[in-house]
Amino acid sequence: MSNDQPKRTEISEIGEFGLIDHLTRGRKTVQPSTLFGVGDDAAVIDNGDHLTVVSTDLLVEGVHFDLMYYPLKHLGYKAVVVNLSDIYAMNAIPKQITVSMALSNRFSVEAVEEIYAGIYAACDHYGVDLVGGDTTASPRGLLISITAIGQGERDKLTYRHTAKKGDIICITGDLGAAYMGLQILEREKQLYLDNPGIQPALEEKAYLVGRQLKPEARRDMIEQFASARLVPTAMIDISDGLASDLLHLCKRSGLGAFLEEANVPIHTEAQLQALDFKLDPITCALSGGEDYELLFTIDPKDVEKVKFMSDIYIAGEMTDAQDGVMLHTTGGNVHPITAQGWKHF
Amino acid sequence: MSNDQPKRTEISEIGEFGLIDHLTRGRKTVQPSTLFGVGDDAAVIDNGDHLTVVSTDLLVEGVHFDLMYYPLKHLGYKAVVVNLSDIYAMNAIPKQITVSMALSNRFSVEAVEEIYAGIYAACDHYGVDLVGGDTTASPRGLLISITAIGQGERDKLTYRHTAKKGDIICITGDLGAAYMGLQILEREKQLYLDNPGIQPALEEKAYLVGRQLKPEARRDMIEQFASARLVPTAMIDISDGLASDLLHLCKRSGLGAFLEEANVPIHTEAQLQALDFKLDPITCALSGGEDYELLFTIDPKDVEKVKFMSDIYIAGEMTDAQDGVMLHTTGGNVHPITAQGWKHF
Repeated sequence: MSNDQPKRTEISEIGEFGLIDHLTRGRKTVQPSTLFGVGDDAAVIDNGDHLTVVSTDLLVEGVHFDLMYYPLKHLGYKAVVVNLSDIYAMNAIPKQITVSMALSNRFSVEAVEEIYAGIYAACDHYGVDLVGGDTTASPRGLLISITAIGQGERDKLTYRHTAKKGDIICITGDLGAAYMGLQILEREKQLYLDNPGIQPALEEKAYLVGRQLKPEARRDMIEQFASARLVPTAMIDISDGLASDLLHLCKRSGLGAFLEEANVPIHTEAQLQALDFKLDPITCALSGGEDYELLFTIDPKDVEKVKFMSDIYIAGEMTDAQDGVMLHTTGGNVHPITAQGWKHF
Repeated sequence: MSNDQPKRTEISEIGEFGLIDHLTRGRKTVQPSTLFGVGDDAAVIDNGDHLTVVSTDLLVEGVHFDLMYYPLKHLGYKAVVVNLSDIYAMNAIPKQITVSMALSNRFSVEAVEEIYAGIYAACDHYGVDLVGGDTTASPRGLLISITAIGQGERDKLTYRHTAKKGDIICITGDLGAAYMGLQILEREKQLYLDNPGIQPALEEKAYLVGRQLKPEARRDMIEQFASARLVPTAMIDISDGLASDLLHLCKRSGLGAFLEEANVPIHTEAQLQALDFKLDPITCALSGGEDYELLFTIDPKDVEKVKFMSDIYIAGEMTDAQDGVMLHTTGGNVHPITAQGWKHF
């Protein structure tokens, strides 16, 4: 029952990604079926004809969500979506999920039903089956752990480490809106706490709040790629923010990159809201996170294919590592892109 | 931000298994590859040549373990083992795991290294690869969610629902020791809290404490089955206690069963310890849980095969559902077996 601690390094000193690197560095895999382990959106397992793609996420009350403004049904939906997004980011199709939950006695059966209504809504929408899980008590709060299992084809999976110099960087949808939605919800929460009689006025902010509370994974993009016989050279989902996720892709690929600020897609409402909050819209797009859009690279010869696809924006190019990861601003300046995404520790 | 709750049913009113039944009842699966979903030790996914078997468990500090006497390394080891046990209980071979953790700022990098040392020790021992996960902050305490992925053969997987009337019930290893180990640790904790100067005297209790702190999954049994070309008709791992797990198997198979008290394997040290605690040894074996032994049924024609296998005990027989699930005591009485396993809610 002793508890010697000769040295104590805070996790916050090295951060989540630093911790994972630290813990997994140098480990070799032993199973021939393990095609790809730690370090991408999902692990890849060889099953002969099929590749199985596995991704897992943990959502913790008070860290990832605030039940004061997060409806339980939306939470269940989002918990599924964030995992499916990782599977799509491998250019694979999610097929099954497992759901584990730890619940304090604050949560009733009816509350859990609400969470499951959201989980099942996502299952129905994306055509995946809930096949297992674990439900247990928690001394405090709610925690949801979801694992998504998908199927991919050997020559079509898209990793983070396979971008080539000169590849074109593409972004789906628009960025920063989920972060703006979160800021609005946080503001309304404060107003409500200060004056519980007040009614939140969220109707006008439906797009931004919706991007936060009910994100969708870009299955449609994977389907577009398949129809066009396009295989991106690399792909990652934008969950931590464009900056952080582009840096991941560059690091894994051993490359640099540049983004054209003017070509980073930001919804008009997100731009206006950012200005209202006295924030720089591009900063919100780079560092906001939770957009669950896709960041991918293509061979320049495939540019024509992408040009005809809806909701895809050509935003930059992969360069040599020594050139760094840079933003070409609309003002004509060049700034290094740094990770300022979500830091939970 | 309203929070209407017209009805409130406590989860404790229906229990963990009741909750899962309630939430999953009536849901149909849509993916052709989903061979088996919720309701067994693991889900089964069809990948053509191979079947993928997936199991997931959540361990919560203060619910499943007490860090006052649970060394972090052992905790990491056990977190893996409990999942592998579910894969073996399908007569499949675990190949990969994912590990997600939520950690409060009480935990240093060095503490997480200890947990991972245990996780890797289990990976090395059982030959599985750690292929992914998620690490995040927690407002309080430690939570570990592990998903194990295994491979099975179509005609060899063992489910819970496939036992037949007249099948022989077998149990591996011995039962009740992990529960006795837990009682010893709880006693030592109380002694320590009352008098922090005291040193715990656990050396003499190494077997029982070891069964609690460092359980193993019965890979050797699955290997024995393969060598002997024995396929059990049904199987479940004994994690909640023999009573609870036998009741699961009976319910899923639509059958009853009887166990011979005299043939339920209990280690001598567990028996002596139970008596020391003024507990009935058979009650500890039936309700203790966390033994991670296997409970399986075989066709009577296979009894000769099992007789020559080490560490397997023939303990009863499957009967008609209307005969109930009964214990034939050494005193010649017949008692219904009721579930008194772990109740976390």
